[in-house]
Amino acid sequence: MDQQKTSAFKRNDRNRIKRGHKRGHYDQKTVYDIIDSHFLCHVAYEVDGQPFIVPTSHWREGNKLYWHGSIKSQMIRHLAKGNSATVSVTHIDGLVLARSAFSTSVNYRSAICYGTPTLVTDKDEWVRVMKLFFDKLAPERWEQLRPMTDQEYKATGLLEMDIEDAAAKVRADPPGDGEEADWPIWAGVIPLDIVERAPIKAPEKGGAPLLHGIMPAYDWKKS
Amino acid sequence: MDQQKTSAFKRNDRNRIKRGHKRGHYDQKTVYDIIDSHFLCHVAYEVDGQPFIVPTSHWREGNKLYWHGSIKSQMIRHLAKGNSATVSVTHIDGLVLARSAFSTSVNYRSAICYGTPTLVTDKDEWVRVMKLFFDKLAPERWEQLRPMTDQEYKATGLLEMDIEDAAAKVRADPPGDGEEADWPIWAGVIPLDIVERAPIKAPEKGGAPLLHGIMPAYDWKKS
Repeated sequence: MDQQKTSAFKRNDRNRIKRGHKRGHYDQKTVYDIIDSHFLCHVAYEVDGQPFIVPTSHWREGNKLYWHGSIKSQMIRHLAKGNSATVSVTHIDGLVLARSAFSTSVNYRSAICYGTPTLVTDKDEWVRVMKLFFDKLAPERWEQLRPMTDQEYKATGLLEMDIEDAAAKVRADPPGDGEEADWPIWAGVIPLDIVERAPIKAPEKGGAPLLHGIMPAYDWKKS
Repeated sequence: MDQQKTSAFKRNDRNRIKRGHKRGHYDQKTVYDIIDSHFLCHVAYEVDGQPFIVPTSHWREGNKLYWHGSIKSQMIRHLAKGNSATVSVTHIDGLVLARSAFSTSVNYRSAICYGTPTLVTDKDEWVRVMKLFFDKLAPERWEQLRPMTDQEYKATGLLEMDIEDAAAKVRADPPGDGEEADWPIWAGVIPLDIVERAPIKAPEKGGAPLLHGIMPAYDWKKS
């Protein structure tokens, strides 16, 4: 296939960015990079006119987006029936403090993907795709883990969604102040970043509970 | 009203957490704290059976959630007509590396709110509510900004949504390894946190372009 023709998503009524259209991107590379740089997505679907939204983890191979959940969850059951899903992946890169309220903004990278997921039921394919998730989260960890059991495979619904339409929107600029650029206050960007803190080793069986630093001090023995 | 009765959301078909129900919370304090601790939300709605999802900024006063956008945007126009919205606020607190794939998880705090937004049209109320947003993002900044113009007020659609139903879901635990707790690999939590980097002052009118650190090196003069 013509590389040029396959490298961008076509614009149509559901993926076209109308407001701030100069920040819109439809090329696969921009969309895929945003998807691949985070493991948190939000999945939206609707049931009888009621919109639902579920935060979950995702990964990608080629033009396919994957996510999973309990086979008994509403989301997995509903989407496995051939219903539409819309998936958003968003990075917040900074708070943009302009000299007017109107120009105050956020620097971000956002990708929205549209499609109709299906359930991966073939067990070999299911295992292959689940490994891809771990290769993204923690390379080489999959091979070290206690192997999946048949019961775990049966309990886990894995959805595969060919990305039919997609668009990215990116802001990575200083304040867009226009005529108020001389207004005499500080203006600029507060960059925001996600960082990893020092790993906290899990307690051995019967070991002491740990306090979690940034996380509330839950009693892990209850879980 | 009875404080006890008003301090929790009632459980029903749309907000009840069925999977991992022990992690579910319905009290207003837990839901509100999650909402207030971030400015990024995702808004889901549906148009003729097609789910849409929009990442945007939100704020809260009492049981009302607010967000805004261009008055011409699809989201604002559609929701201003009395259609349902579902809003999600999610914090990722850590990657939970268990000794099995099945127990591998994420520490998170998530709130989902259901309601039917309306447009705030009274100008005094509009200004009062917009100031609340700035009081959350950057206290005392509103008073310093170049005042809003009438044109900016007309261009900005402000939505107000009484939170009809809501639920929170929280995981803040070490790996939930069961029988595999003796499997001989490292397991634990990699805490994740959002941090502010050093502020980057905006260029003065005609000043030099800045490089953004974590952000791509866009040419700000194009914006």
